[in-house]
Amino acid sequence: MSHELFMRHRETLERAIAAVRTREFFAVFPESPSRKVYGEEAPAAGQQAFEARLGRPFELDQPTTGAWVGAEESPWGIELGIRYPAPDVDRMIAAARAALPAWRDVGPEVRAGVCLEILTRLNARSFEMAYAVMHTTGQGFAMAFQAGGPHAQDRGVEAVAYALDLQRRVPARTVWARATGRDRVERFEKEYRIVPHGLGLVVGCSTFPTWNGYPSLFADLATGNPVLIKPHPRVVLPLALTVEVARAVLQEAGFDPALVQLVVDTPEAPLTRELAQRPEIRLIDFTGSTAFGDWLERHAPQARVFTEKAGVNCVILHSTDNYRGMLANLAFSLSLYSGQMCTTPQDIFIPAGGIATDQGPKSFDEIASDLAAAIDRLLADPARAGEILGCIQNPATLERIERVQQAAGADVVRPSSALEHPKFPKARIRTPLLVRATSGQLDLYGEELFGPIAFLIEADDVDDAIARVGQLLATRGALTLLAHSTDAGVMARIEQLALERGVALSENLTGGVYVNQSAAFSDYHATGVNPAANATLVDEDFVASRYHIVQRRRPVREAGGAGS
Amino acid sequence: MSHELFMRHRETLERAIAAVRTREFFAVFPESPSRKVYGEEAPAAGQQAFEARLGRPFELDQPTTGAWVGAEESPWGIELGIRYPAPDVDRMIAAARAALPAWRDVGPEVRAGVCLEILTRLNARSFEMAYAVMHTTGQGFAMAFQAGGPHAQDRGVEAVAYALDLQRRVPARTVWARATGRDRVERFEKEYRIVPHGLGLVVGCSTFPTWNGYPSLFADLATGNPVLIKPHPRVVLPLALTVEVARAVLQEAGFDPALVQLVVDTPEAPLTRELAQRPEIRLIDFTGSTAFGDWLERHAPQARVFTEKAGVNCVILHSTDNYRGMLANLAFSLSLYSGQMCTTPQDIFIPAGGIATDQGPKSFDEIASDLAAAIDRLLADPARAGEILGCIQNPATLERIERVQQAAGADVVRPSSALEHPKFPKARIRTPLLVRATSGQLDLYGEELFGPIAFLIEADDVDDAIARVGQLLATRGALTLLAHSTDAGVMARIEQLALERGVALSENLTGGVYVNQSAAFSDYHATGVNPAANATLVDEDFVASRYHIVQRRRPVREAGGAGS
Repeated sequence: MSHELFMRHRETLERAIAAVRTREFFAVFPESPSRKVYGEEAPAAGQQAFEARLGRPFELDQPTTGAWVGAEESPWGIELGIRYPAPDVDRMIAAARAALPAWRDVGPEVRAGVCLEILTRLNARSFEMAYAVMHTTGQGFAMAFQAGGPHAQDRGVEAVAYALDLQRRVPARTVWARATGRDRVERFEKEYRIVPHGLGLVVGCSTFPTWNGYPSLFADLATGNPVLIKPHPRVVLPLALTVEVARAVLQEAGFDPALVQLVVDTPEAPLTRELAQRPEIRLIDFTGSTAFGDWLERHAPQARVFTEKAGVNCVILHSTDNYRGMLANLAFSLSLYSGQMCTTPQDIFIPAGGIATDQGPKSFDEIASDLAAAIDRLLADPARAGEILGCIQNPATLERIERVQQAAGADVVRPSSALEHPKFPKARIRTPLLVRATSGQLDLYGEELFGPIAFLIEADDVDDAIARVGQLLATRGALTLLAHSTDAGVMARIEQLALERGVALSENLTGGVYVNQSAAFSDYHATGVNPAANATLVDEDFVASRYHIVQRRRPVREAGGAGS
Repeated sequence: MSHELFMRHRETLERAIAAVRTREFFAVFPESPSRKVYGEEAPAAGQQAFEARLGRPFELDQPTTGAWVGAEESPWGIELGIRYPAPDVDRMIAAARAALPAWRDVGPEVRAGVCLEILTRLNARSFEMAYAVMHTTGQGFAMAFQAGGPHAQDRGVEAVAYALDLQRRVPARTVWARATGRDRVERFEKEYRIVPHGLGLVVGCSTFPTWNGYPSLFADLATGNPVLIKPHPRVVLPLALTVEVARAVLQEAGFDPALVQLVVDTPEAPLTRELAQRPEIRLIDFTGSTAFGDWLERHAPQARVFTEKAGVNCVILHSTDNYRGMLANLAFSLSLYSGQMCTTPQDIFIPAGGIATDQGPKSFDEIASDLAAAIDRLLADPARAGEILGCIQNPATLERIERVQQAAGADVVRPSSALEHPKFPKARIRTPLLVRATSGQLDLYGEELFGPIAFLIEADDVDDAIARVGQLLATRGALTLLAHSTDAGVMARIEQLALERGVALSENLTGGVYVNQSAAFSDYHATGVNPAANATLVDEDFVASRYHIVQRRRPVREAGGAGS
């Protein structure tokens, strides 16, 4: 069975391995939530499967204390009431350790095949997953489907492709022959085995639990490491579904389902610190706050720690030949999922003298009001607006919007407002807040204010803007930088800045690709250079430190003659 | 010039890249100190070059306080008296940072070419290097030549090969095209750039400064990182020569020599801790004590830390079809460089009931006395003995031998004795000490006792031996394990142990390959699994975490039509 899974997914894996080398467009799983692709029954079946979960215990045959825990609440306002088995961490770790040897011994190809089968089964459940992601993260349905389903699954395939490709670089065996004299050859058989680094801990985030979690989960699994998944206590269901599918596939393929276990904790009794410091945990993947990411980097020295933390994503406006496109693109970027993407821009630097455009020069004030108007236009239809904005995942974000808006007073360019959704009356929907600032107000815009909050910052000129962005990148870090300029010299200076500070740069986006978006197999997500992250989804480093090579050698028994 | 260096070394690099994938025998630099290979004049010229260094300042045009420091002394007893410029660390770090951008921007191929040129020039100076290594580490001349010269240089080539191969996996650019509608295609140009992680610090060791240092130095350099080399204060000259050559080549190729700088400290005013905690230092490579390696792993969280620390290398004897060969091979392994290799066996486990051999059963006592006799035979000729044993590098090792020998009393199987060298009357030469122990005496044999000290430990039987070795591997770690058995079942259990504990296993060595030896391009040195090391010389992980990828993307300007 298990080798058959590799054969079944082999062609997909080879294509994925080729894709990350060319970085041309590639996708395994269709991103459209279309009946034509996923089947006529899929949307309704997915919704029913999701609804059948509500108000019930989520059964997982894992070591448990016997208690049931659950603290999820839907930002869309529906009742969830799902309870999960409270983990017995000691027995889980013991079970994971016991599961390791057989998983190690089957080798990279079988592991890759099993991982692809898990991802394929997850893909078949993308509608159910979409509802799970929507009602925990607050994303709109379409985004929840795409980012939570096929895009996350593709990121998982990408990690498996890297893992298989790198592990294959190590030959299983070789014959090593060295001439040691005129007629003598020392001849050795050598064997090389891939062994995993140890147990992995994947700490899930509250906004993109699958998209951010799958690269880690599948990089660990594909290189032989059992994984404990510790979801955010408010966003459990998407990873619980993932664990359920993974365990079922593992079991069918003849492996111990303890290779993937779900550790649910609660806000009152968090488990991450304790888990992260267990000596058995050798790999930790974390997406979340800078404070906790820094803590992990410093306090879990027994583990290799991969973090994606907070940053301050910036925009530099200098000039454009498509003013309308620029504004529409930016309006969408600021609105999408209410700015709750780790890639959403926050600080938009504009020269005091305005910018040159195809519609003539535009002053700072004109840009500010035109951007506000572009957002208004985008969000004019409430149903469509709700779909784009989604909900505010964390009530603390609502307070943050309120606080910044109050403090800004007359500097509010566009106030954030609540939006009624026809179908979800209790949904926490807020439109983006735009605030103007002077470049000296670093206390205002100089740290991440998570949520739909953006600043239009008046810089002296474009070089002042570049210098200030450089400072933010050095001190706070960022995942993305967006720049608009028709001047090759200016863009070259911005490119130099992005290179020096290690941030992914998007230039002159005016169409249907947004700075927030990062495409599997082509775009590297985070660089590991600036303070926003110490790792990249997915590069060689993300995978290579998860396994080791153990060799043995012995003389070839027949005495070697001369030659060969 | 710089691209020309890549063309000059391209074929060698491609062959090296292929070699690490097949792991068959491969070498770039000839290991024999032969006049036929290196030229009639080379030995004398190397000796003269070395002697011309003695008693003089070693000029390096680096930032310095103006003072001169030097604390080397030759274990062979000759006067060295070399002084080195005392480092001005702040200015050195500033110089390294200033040198980074141009080195980053030339890309992987030019960097690989420059690195190969440095290694080729080092190879041409292998005789000078041999004397430098011999008179600082105490190695015999032949070993100093091989391990300090061509073998170290080959390890450097290996690191460059990995670095080039991995960096090449990232394309410089791509065109990414995604269909976004029936007739619409979003088309993007994307560019990807390799950027270095930051400044590297390579902390040299006192026994194999070049062999252990070159993989780190060249992995850093080849991936774009400037390097500060901090040699052991008693073993400076080999790395000073290396820095001199590297700086000359860099300068000739049009690069800033500040890419490679030598930071010499003294035992009285060590600099490593301070350097390791500088925020600018992002990569640290260390070979040395477990205590300091563990300290670095915990106290330099701003850096990726690669350590090779102490371990307890073991031997399990069960049975052999070549008793004489087994003893001769083991005698050589224990004697070579007086057990001062990180790969030398220390704890030899023997079943209480003895072992089966081609010469009939041998009891524990017979094996002990036969091994002692094999060592005596090997070292019978004083000149040859001095060449094999070399000198005791650190006087503390002399004290350790004395202490263990005194404490062992009647359990001494073979006493260590001083040996007079005809040419070097002051040389610190000691023969191996063999001590018998019961398996309960863990306090005696359970930690690394660096130097020519080995224990013959009576285990209940082979499975007791396997269990005890497993315990040592788990708690202390090891770089090597040697086993002798003609029983496939026994060997399978030992192989399983080696796999579980992550140690390189050598089986049934009876010829001219020794457990101490690790061949570039074929043998992985250390696994990163057990406590003896957290990294491997050289695998993908050793290189991939030294650089990152920064991308930029922009829409292709001509509006995309349908198709393609």
